[in-house]
This record gives sequence, structure tokens and C-alpha cells, in this order.
Amino acid sequence: MTHHHHWPTIHTHHYGWNNALEPVQRILPGDTLSFEIVDAGGGQLSRSATLETLKNLDFGSINPVTGPVFIEGAKPGDALCVELLEFRTSGWGWTANIPGFGLLADQFPDPYLIVSHHDAQAANFLPGVARVPIKPFTGVIGVAPGESGQHSVVPPRRVGGNLDIRDLSEGSKLYLPIEVNGALFSVGDTHAAQGDGEVCGTAIESPMEITLRFSLLEQANFKTPRFETAGPVTRHHDEKGYYCTTGIGPDLWQASRDATLEMIDHLTKNYALEPIEAYLLCSVAVDLRISEIVDAPNWVVSAYLPKAVMV
Amino acid sequence: MTHHHHWPTIHTHHYGWNNALEPVQRILPGDTLSFEIVDAGGGQLSRSATLETLKNLDFGSINPVTGPVFIEGAKPGDALCVELLEFRTSGWGWTANIPGFGLLADQFPDPYLIVSHHDAQAANFLPGVARVPIKPFTGVIGVAPGESGQHSVVPPRRVGGNLDIRDLSEGSKLYLPIEVNGALFSVGDTHAAQGDGEVCGTAIESPMEITLRFSLLEQANFKTPRFETAGPVTRHHDEKGYYCTTGIGPDLWQASRDATLEMIDHLTKNYALEPIEAYLLCSVAVDLRISEIVDAPNWVVSAYLPKAVMV
Repeated sequence: MTHHHHWPTIHTHHYGWNNALEPVQRILPGDTLSFEIVDAGGGQLSRSATLETLKNLDFGSINPVTGPVFIEGAKPGDALCVELLEFRTSGWGWTANIPGFGLLADQFPDPYLIVSHHDAQAANFLPGVARVPIKPFTGVIGVAPGESGQHSVVPPRRVGGNLDIRDLSEGSKLYLPIEVNGALFSVGDTHAAQGDGEVCGTAIESPMEITLRFSLLEQANFKTPRFETAGPVTRHHDEKGYYCTTGIGPDLWQASRDATLEMIDHLTKNYALEPIEAYLLCSVAVDLRISEIVDAPNWVVSAYLPKAVMV
Repeated sequence: MTHHHHWPTIHTHHYGWNNALEPVQRILPGDTLSFEIVDAGGGQLSRSATLETLKNLDFGSINPVTGPVFIEGAKPGDALCVELLEFRTSGWGWTANIPGFGLLADQFPDPYLIVSHHDAQAANFLPGVARVPIKPFTGVIGVAPGESGQHSVVPPRRVGGNLDIRDLSEGSKLYLPIEVNGALFSVGDTHAAQGDGEVCGTAIESPMEITLRFSLLEQANFKTPRFETAGPVTRHHDEKGYYCTTGIGPDLWQASRDATLEMIDHLTKNYALEPIEAYLLCSVAVDLRISEIVDAPNWVVSAYLPKAVMV
């Protein structure tokens, strides 16, 4: 990837989605921009953060996004193509259990924090027990909704936003349905690593500098975001295979909970891990897949732990 | 893998799960057996099957399973470890849309049939358009439920059964929770290829001979099946990357439908495919992953089409 930092860099961030926000930059299709991404905690959690820092988190400053960028000529019905050219990570990140948030919020009511450091290959997530291969990507990436007013950044929407799609990483292309003139693109919430599902609600949350190139697919009329990956998506962790648990039943959400709880059972019985540590490890390294969704009335969700993660 | 066919081969099959069925073979932990698996159609659909054959399918003879095998010493609370040693495929298989069955049953009311042939690498699924890398596995694999009486083979259960987990393929180990003395193991519904989800309800349904080795994990007390893979699970198809669509909303089942419908839109607009052909292709080659399940109220399901599939 290129290391010529001659692209304009966007630093300004905002909270929530609102199509009345003034663009901080106007570009043409084909242009490339860099973005200085603040982590999802808005800088409140640093390398030296403690559980006390987490307990005092100001949720009004959570999930800042950098932008908005106005793309000349972008019209409702077009798709904004965003090429994810380069990620420069900061070498550290935080992962937290935030009470009331996450797939197993009822099982894990207490706050918990892991600050980890990573090199270009992996994060020393649980020293001596688990080393998590990194794959930096953008958690929040989207354009402004057509509906006026202020919209929470938490739920993803058809215009993108908090998608948390692990494979929106270097080399991928994302196609976002545009609802307003100029698209009004913003990006944030960079993650150094995450499993499919992000079960505890946070990944390895890490500030980064990223470089993106923009173009338009005129009148693509996609109903929801689409993306393409340039190559394989699991080779950073799949070499030793997987240990997998399952959840089986008529509700995919409950089946996902059951599969995750069984994975936590596996991790705590076979490794020196507390349940809360296992839960956070699932969030950053375990993938939820829908094995079958047709054998009524019971569907199967499988949770895949890459064996390479366990030291 | 071994090619010494000196193991006993089980041919007898039965319909449904019932712990009163007489075992057809008794073995010791550590023993290996081969199984002649009839396809999920119970032999009604052959290499020369037509749409008429499908329309006249006798559903009373659907989903036979081969067994049951009594494993000496197996007790409730143990897990039966099944090592999937070898799959010898028949070189052909069928894929059908069966009215009333499948994730998009309301959108595809008419029966449809594709008979495809495969070599050791791939099936010529839609000649000139899509070639599907094969990865043979067992769709139905399980032990008898503790509850007496006759139980349908269609829904998977905590004792296994119609799991349709694509990675229960050569080299994997499956751990099944045992509920009755002797476990009473049966297996069937072999598939030459399937995407995670099996969205149309059938895979590449193919008769096979398979070889399995059995052992016990005493008092493992697993709540649901678990499995381990010996190595990577997507390298048979991931080399060129993926084209992906998404479904976003508060219900994972509906999000899966939306992602699949958008994939069918992509396939029909960019390739010479009818919607029903695209739907069947999704079932045998597209993977459903849960990208995030925590950004309330909206979850994200992504449908991954391996680009290598498209000719």
C-alpha cells in the first residue's frame, strides 16, 4: 500500500448522524482522503486507562465520527464506493464490558477493561493465554440518512454507520446507498480486531489513521450496503483450524447466546481464564456463523474460535 | 486418508429418531466404521432425475439415516466423539427448491431442480456461469434423543441430527451430547457442497461412502454439539475474495432474508441467471455470517459469495 501522505487529512469529528451538518471537506469522485480516527471512547480511554476510567466514562462523548465529507455529484439512489486503502494503527487498544450493553449483558453486569498492545501481526490480548491476530477495520462507516434531524450512531442503518463488519479492512471496497446530495460521508470507531458478532459490544478499540478513495456508482439503488474483499478474509487466523460450539433453536439471537455461553464454558474449563475474560476474548476473536436457517423449527448458529489464538 | 476398506460397512437405514430402534451394529470406543449413505431423497432422485421426479417425491421416504450404532460403555452425560476420517463421493448430486421449504419459501413457490456433476475439486453447478468448489460433509449426524417415541429428522436437536454444519467435513471431530445408553448413533444426508445457512433448504445432495471413528468423552456434559476442524475451513473457495450483501434490522432471520434477496439481485443483474438459479446457488455456495449482534436495535447479517465460484 502507498505510504505517501500527501492526501488531505480530515480531523474534525461529530456525534450522531444529521444531514444538516456542514461538510468539513468537499471532494470529487476519484479523490483520496486520509482520516485521523479517534477511538470509540472519544479519547477518554488511554493506554493507561483503568477500571475507574471506564466507570467514569461520559457516554455523551462516545462514538465520534470523522467528517462529514461532501462528494460532488453524489445523488440519492447512487452508491458511494469507498476503497479502504490503508490502515495505520496506533499499536494499542481497549476492550470493555459496558454494563447493559452486549449479547450477554444479563450474565455480565459488571464493568471490565482490557488494554492490549499489538504489533503488525497480533495483540497480546491475554498475556500467556491468548494472542489475537489483528485485522484493522472501520466499525462505523456511512453516509447521512435522508430523514432530517439527529440520529443515534449506535444502530447501523441502510446508509451504513455502525456496521461492525470485520472485513471492511485494507483492500476491501464498500458500497453505501446514498440518500442525500453529496452523500455526507463520515467514518470512525476503528478496530484492531473483532470476531463476527462483536458479542460483548466492543472490539479492540483503537485510534488509527486511515486512507480512503471515493467514487460513485450512479443509480445503483442498493437496498443496503454491499462490499467486496480483495482476497481471503480469515487467513490471518485460520491456519490451525477452529474449536466450535453451537446454539440450536427457533431464535437466532438466543442460539447465538447459547453458542457463546458454551464457548465461554470451553474457554474457562480448558484455559486459565475468568468468564468475563473469555467473554471479551469471544468479542475480539470468535466468529458467529449461521450454519443452517431452514430445518424448521430449529436453526443452528456456530461460534468459531480460531485455535491459533490460544497461546 | 486411509483407503483400506477393511472396516465393517453399515447399510441399514431408518427414518426419524427413536431410542427404541434396535442397533444394527455394536462397537467399542476406538472402533472405525464405514457407512453407505443414501442421499436425502432416499434414492428417489437419480442422475437422470427431472422436474417431474421432484414433483412426485414421496416425502415419507425423505432423509433416511444409516444406523443406529450402539457404542459400548456410552452413557448419558458423555459426549460421543466422531472423527470424520474419509468421504468418498459419488460424483453427482441434486439441489432442489421444494415448495414451502427454505428461507425464501414465500418468494419461490415453484419446484426447481439442478442435477450437477463434480470431480474432486468442484461441481459444474451452472455450466458456464458458476462452478462450486466441493467440500463433502454430513448434513444429518446425531445420536438418539432421551425422550421416547418417534422424532422427526428435520429439526436439529441438542443430540445433533440435521445440523447441516458445512465444516463437519474430512478431518473434523464432532462431539455429540449422549442421552441414552449406547448413544445410538446414525448418520445421513451427505452433501458435496453447501453455504453456511443452506438457504433454499437443500445443498448438493449426494450419496457417499464415509468412514468414521468413535470414542467417548466421559461426563463432558456439553449442552449442545461441539466440533473441531483440523485446519482452515474456507480455503477451498476464498482465494479470489468475496462479494457480499447485507441485511440490517432487529431480527436476524429477516436480516438473513434481506441479505439473501440482495445477493440474488446482484447475481441476476450481473450474470446470466434466473432468480431461482441464483437462490439455489446461494444455498450451495454463499455463507451467512453474523457481522454484529450488539448495536441495538439493529443487527447485521452478511451474505458472502466467494468470487471464485463465478466462472
